[in-house]
Amino acid sequence: MKPVNVGLLGTGFMGRTHTYAYKSIPFYIQSPDALARMVAVYSRTPEKAVRFKEVHGFSKVYLNDWRKLIDDKEVEVVDNTLPNFLHYEPCLYALESGKNVICEKPLTVKLEEARKLYEKSIKTGVKTMSIFNYRFLPAVKFMKNFISSGQIGKLFHFRCVFAHSGHVDVNRPWSWKENFETSGGGASADLGIHAIDLARYLVGEISKVMAREKIFIPERKDPTGETKKVTADDAFMSLLEFENGALGTLEATRVGTGYKNYLRVEIHGSEGGLVWNLEDLNYVKVFKTEGPRREQGWKVILVDLPWWPPRGHIGGWQTGHVFALYNFLEAIVKDEKEFAPTFYDGYQAQRVLEAIHRSNKENRWIDLEMVR
Amino acid sequence: MKPVNVGLLGTGFMGRTHTYAYKSIPFYIQSPDALARMVAVYSRTPEKAVRFKEVHGFSKVYLNDWRKLIDDKEVEVVDNTLPNFLHYEPCLYALESGKNVICEKPLTVKLEEARKLYEKSIKTGVKTMSIFNYRFLPAVKFMKNFISSGQIGKLFHFRCVFAHSGHVDVNRPWSWKENFETSGGGASADLGIHAIDLARYLVGEISKVMAREKIFIPERKDPTGETKKVTADDAFMSLLEFENGALGTLEATRVGTGYKNYLRVEIHGSEGGLVWNLEDLNYVKVFKTEGPRREQGWKVILVDLPWWPPRGHIGGWQTGHVFALYNFLEAIVKDEKEFAPTFYDGYQAQRVLEAIHRSNKENRWIDLEMVR
Amino acid sequence: MKPVNVGLLGTGFMGRTHTYAYKSIPFYIQSPDALARMVAVYSRTPEKAVRFKEVHGFSKVYLNDWRKLIDDKEVEVVDNTLPNFLHYEPCLYALESGKNVICEKPLTVKLEEARKLYEKSIKTGVKTMSIFNYRFLPAVKFMKNFISSGQIGKLFHFRCVFAHSGHVDVNRPWSWKENFETSGGGASADLGIHAIDLARYLVGEISKVMAREKIFIPERKDPTGETKKVTADDAFMSLLEFENGALGTLEATRVGTGYKNYLRVEIHGSEGGLVWNLEDLNYVKVFKTEGPRREQGWKVILVDLPWWPPRGHIGGWQTGHVFALYNFLEAIVKDEKEFAPTFYDGYQAQRVLEAIHRSNKENRWIDLEMVR
Amino acid sequence: MKPVNVGLLGTGFMGRTHTYAYKSIPFYIQSPDALARMVAVYSRTPEKAVRFKEVHGFSKVYLNDWRKLIDDKEVEVVDNTLPNFLHYEPCLYALESGKNVICEKPLTVKLEEARKLYEKSIKTGVKTMSIFNYRFLPAVKFMKNFISSGQIGKLFHFRCVFAHSGHVDVNRPWSWKENFETSGGGASADLGIHAIDLARYLVGEISKVMAREKIFIPERKDPTGETKKVTADDAFMSLLEFENGALGTLEATRVGTGYKNYLRVEIHGSEGGLVWNLEDLNYVKVFKTEGPRREQGWKVILVDLPWWPPRGHIGGWQTGHVFALYNFLEAIVKDEKEFAPTFYDGYQAQRVLEAIHRSNKENRWIDLEMVR
Repeated sequence: MKPVNVGLLGTGFMGRTHTYAYKSIPFYIQSPDALARMVAVYSRTPEKAVRFKEVHGFSKVYLNDWRKLIDDKEVEVVDNTLPNFLHYEPCLYALESGKNVICEKPLTVKLEEARKLYEKSIKTGVKTMSIFNYRFLPAVKFMKNFISSGQIGKLFHFRCVFAHSGHVDVNRPWSWKENFETSGGGASADLGIHAIDLARYLVGEISKVMAREKIFIPERKDPTGETKKVTADDAFMSLLEFENGALGTLEATRVGTGYKNYLRVEIHGSEGGLVWNLEDLNYVKVFKTEGPRREQGWKVILVDLPWWPPRGHIGGWQTGHVFALYNFLEAIVKDEKEFAPTFYDGYQAQRVLEAIHRSNKENRWIDLEMVR
Repeated sequence: MKPVNVGLLGTGFMGRTHTYAYKSIPFYIQSPDALARMVAVYSRTPEKAVRFKEVHGFSKVYLNDWRKLIDDKEVEVVDNTLPNFLHYEPCLYALESGKNVICEKPLTVKLEEARKLYEKSIKTGVKTMSIFNYRFLPAVKFMKNFISSGQIGKLFHFRCVFAHSGHVDVNRPWSWKENFETSGGGASADLGIHAIDLARYLVGEISKVMAREKIFIPERKDPTGETKKVTADDAFMSLLEFENGALGTLEATRVGTGYKNYLRVEIHGSEGGLVWNLEDLNYVKVFKTEGPRREQGWKVILVDLPWWPPRGHIGGWQTGHVFALYNFLEAIVKDEKEFAPTFYDGYQAQRVLEAIHRSNKENRWIDLEMVR
Repeated sequence: MKPVNVGLLGTGFMGRTHTYAYKSIPFYIQSPDALARMVAVYSRTPEKAVRFKEVHGFSKVYLNDWRKLIDDKEVEVVDNTLPNFLHYEPCLYALESGKNVICEKPLTVKLEEARKLYEKSIKTGVKTMSIFNYRFLPAVKFMKNFISSGQIGKLFHFRCVFAHSGHVDVNRPWSWKENFETSGGGASADLGIHAIDLARYLVGEISKVMAREKIFIPERKDPTGETKKVTADDAFMSLLEFENGALGTLEATRVGTGYKNYLRVEIHGSEGGLVWNLEDLNYVKVFKTEGPRREQGWKVILVDLPWWPPRGHIGGWQTGHVFALYNFLEAIVKDEKEFAPTFYDGYQAQRVLEAIHRSNKENRWIDLEMVR
Repeated sequence: MKPVNVGLLGTGFMGRTHTYAYKSIPFYIQSPDALARMVAVYSRTPEKAVRFKEVHGFSKVYLNDWRKLIDDKEVEVVDNTLPNFLHYEPCLYALESGKNVICEKPLTVKLEEARKLYEKSIKTGVKTMSIFNYRFLPAVKFMKNFISSGQIGKLFHFRCVFAHSGHVDVNRPWSWKENFETSGGGASADLGIHAIDLARYLVGEISKVMAREKIFIPERKDPTGETKKVTADDAFMSLLEFENGALGTLEATRVGTGYKNYLRVEIHGSEGGLVWNLEDLNYVKVFKTEGPRREQGWKVILVDLPWWPPRGHIGGWQTGHVFALYNFLEAIVKDEKEFAPTFYDGYQAQRVLEAIHRSNKENRWIDLEMVR
């Protein structure tokens, strides 16, 4: 039960969620090998940082410069939950400072930056993590194991949609998320990147992408009332070819009226199928072509948490972050070499994201020659 | 309650289904304006034709030549349920003979033939029907009305997949359905064509298509044990742009392990959404952005049959054909000009199907310039 | 393929449904051993009878006296779909006339009459059928087989509710169904009797019953505007003990707001469970305590029709009647001795129904000493 | 944000869950008025207590006598999560010591003890809480508000089953839970008590109860291998009459094969209905008899957490405890007089539980004369 010293950048939704995750490790994990010590926190808004420190019991607060937090000798892990456009620089600085680095998705706003972070991480040899929290949900892990153990045979189809409805309201104010320069994409970079990671995690590497993006609501007012252009996609849809021969469709939208946080995965293989959906995240539907045909059907499995709360007590959305962050701390403490998803995975997801943007612009299939 | 004389070509699954539909009109329709009189039946297999006549009480049977059935003076409607490659010639001959014509989907094997049938039908002025039976399911009609009356606002997304698993078994024998020449397509012509029609019916005309087809199981043995090449797609996936600005994804597969007859439609508009699935065909899920936000949700509506059996008594798959064929007979009896889907719709669906094939081959978006 | 001559009493919802069922046999049954010949029809309303004969092609119509239909030498099977209070006399007369008899549920209005019908049927040796159509739905048959073959082990729990909402509207007019004398019970005799039969069919004989009935809306206006007392229960709930040691709860209501025709069955045994619901009648949920515990779950099985339409094409509510009536005709043609449900089953269900009424009145458990 | 000093009795599943809840307040509650300070912990097993203190950061640990924890001057709230047979004495002692008291369900093993605790709590004037955590789940609160605001009209039916399958395995060892003397009941006291509380919370006071209990597996081996008698029920089923005229059925079982933690509530009123189930605890199904009848249906509402994680991010089972314990601390800090559920509610639930036991023994309806 070794403590690891964490410095947190950002105190928004993700800052809070990460803090919760670190603090909940002793509940969700039976005999944790690693624990988090909340050493320092930074926010762009000083009052928020100060209050966050108080409420959640961080030792120190840094108010004006994230560099100071990274420079703090006590900080072993820099956890970056700042907005997308503030991923690159702090992560690079942290890598250069020899710190282990966690970064929320998407890794960066531009592909080139993601590549640089990945390369730097290789050179420095520190541990990195791209936050793809859904990999760590028990039900998603169940699917991964189910596929890996060959239970659904050779993969034929992957079908994935991530739909939110947060942008259906035309009065939702313009923010950095609507601006391509600061976000790196709209539904694509915010939601699609999760779907891309699940595609890679569950099915394998993507070889070709064909996509169409769309901005349905081209202007919004910012909080001051000024009309601003929306330059980041409200939705995209894409066709995928996987290296293993499977076909895939992948979509994300923030105008998916009716869905709040609907990330559905459907997979068909030669011997079975899998269906899962984030809005009902504890359940996996499994189909197997075994036994008498008239007794075949989709088995709805309630996938339990590993320890607490015990079986039948369904887990919340945030358990993905708990297991993600715990596994990273454990990887540090045990110096595990096989840990994933690292910045490599963040970079690969970014390559697919960029291919989606390019395919949309150039109206053609984009080949993703993997240089792994 | 005027009787209409029907001559039926084909006694397979569809021949039986159409016969059922004609005979069930007095049960499902409260005060039918038209009834069917089963005048004559033809099958390529004489014994089948003879037995079919006996069992279902047709007046006459034609054994060796479908032309004779069409020539029969009593026959007012020629109903073609023969295999795809036997759609064109009998339909053309029936049109030339001035008969009203019903044809199962897809209208033809080649686009050019569909165009000719459509043009001939315009010239002769008879009534035609392309069988897109799903339009006539009460739940699909409900969706059509819901959209038309503006209840979900401007359309953003259409998402449709038609998945069967009949071809997952590699020992399934090769048949004309596996041969592109005789089928006009595999999953695309057999299943996809239904999805295409629903796209046009529910959302509107498609302006652009981008598609990828795939044959997962490239060889099968025919009933004699001879190995044959599969030349018709096992699956396809496509991106759609609609004339009204909506985006769409549309897929069909016959290796969709786990699904038997799964045709799912999801639609998101600016003010609501709709979800429906053929494996649960009596239910529509409806979302509306009205009322207090915390009381919004997907309403699961059990759409009742119009008359019998009364409310709460769910209907079977075949009710689509009952209402389709009744509506056509009624259109003849009342000489309705607005009836749809006619051969025009069969032709338009075929244009999209052909664009899917072309896009797959040419790796590019296909523009569908509508010449309506 | 032997024809059996049927004489039908009643042309309401059930008269139509039975006629549909008889006529649909050649579609739903692959090689039927028996077919129905619609010989004669009787209705209390002469115009209805005449029109019904025309529309559905009966040979004869009897207008003023159901005895005449029963006396008709051609009639081999008397099928009684008249209102509950007209079950006893025609059935008795038909039995005395040596006719095979079908009777809609409940068998009679009074227990004593049901006993007499059952005893008379034994004496005459004709074939009888109490219509418990739900036994014949493919999914219910599936459950029966699943239990009989021991797949869910020893039975622990049966839980059944049949909920309609037809009487929630206080303006629904009073009819014979609201009058205990003419109906033999409200929700209990109309809906509960189906649930009782499923309990006996799926689990076994009931040894003890404890019940409470309730009239929520004590007065209604009849069609003339006159206020009438409601004397038949709007709902009842009961506890059951089965001879095999299982426990059961059984309810029915016609004020089950939200449900149109919701008949849900839940069964737990020592090695598995079953869940089914009439509003989704093609699906059975099956649980088995086998295999790794973390892969256990409820398997949702789409139970197909035996022949047509083929797999994946879901069946409607009325298929229960199709298979029920076909099986009875087949039992006549083949002189099967093991056919069920006969008037014996109708009588046993009536005994449970009467015990519910008695328990409600006497506030105590009622023992059902089976004299089988 | 006032801290309240908590002393915890018990470090099992519930001890851990309560500790989690206290510590998670700053995450789930936007601006908490109260926080918990984990002052002291006691366990019957000293090593567990010591380790629990370390892991979760309690200030003190008491090893041999729970009285010492209660005597601790710093402790303001005594939170009792010990086994059922250790509820009465510590709670009484805590009340006598003038401490605020929280007690897990059921309040006591014997009704008489529950009455005494309730009476003592009134006399001392401290704050008490009976843990009925499900009241505090957002979806259950939603139902409560929905009913209270009259949205489903006059209540007709309540239908509730709480089914576990933990005891289906005959090899599960005997424990204090199988012994009526130490548990106060099996499925009834462990699970049924939750259902009883939901009945009272959602529908109102129960006036009459009729019940049957059953022990399906009459013997089990204890951990030493000795065969012991099971004296606590494996299941019970009951009929309820409510003071407001509604009918209810209420069941619980620990041999409900297939269900892990299935607590389903169904309510029908004159103008609507509600359905909810603990295995899918974020969703409520709502039916309203408003608008065009053909657009009526069950609306599936994803009930969000009040603050974090934000809408669409589903909550876990343990949120019930978070909101329960926070609300109690808040009630202390603000000296709220209307807080519920107190020991009054624990006592009332116990009265119903005892009536179930009595009805089972005496085979009759038990009147619950409320002395409120």
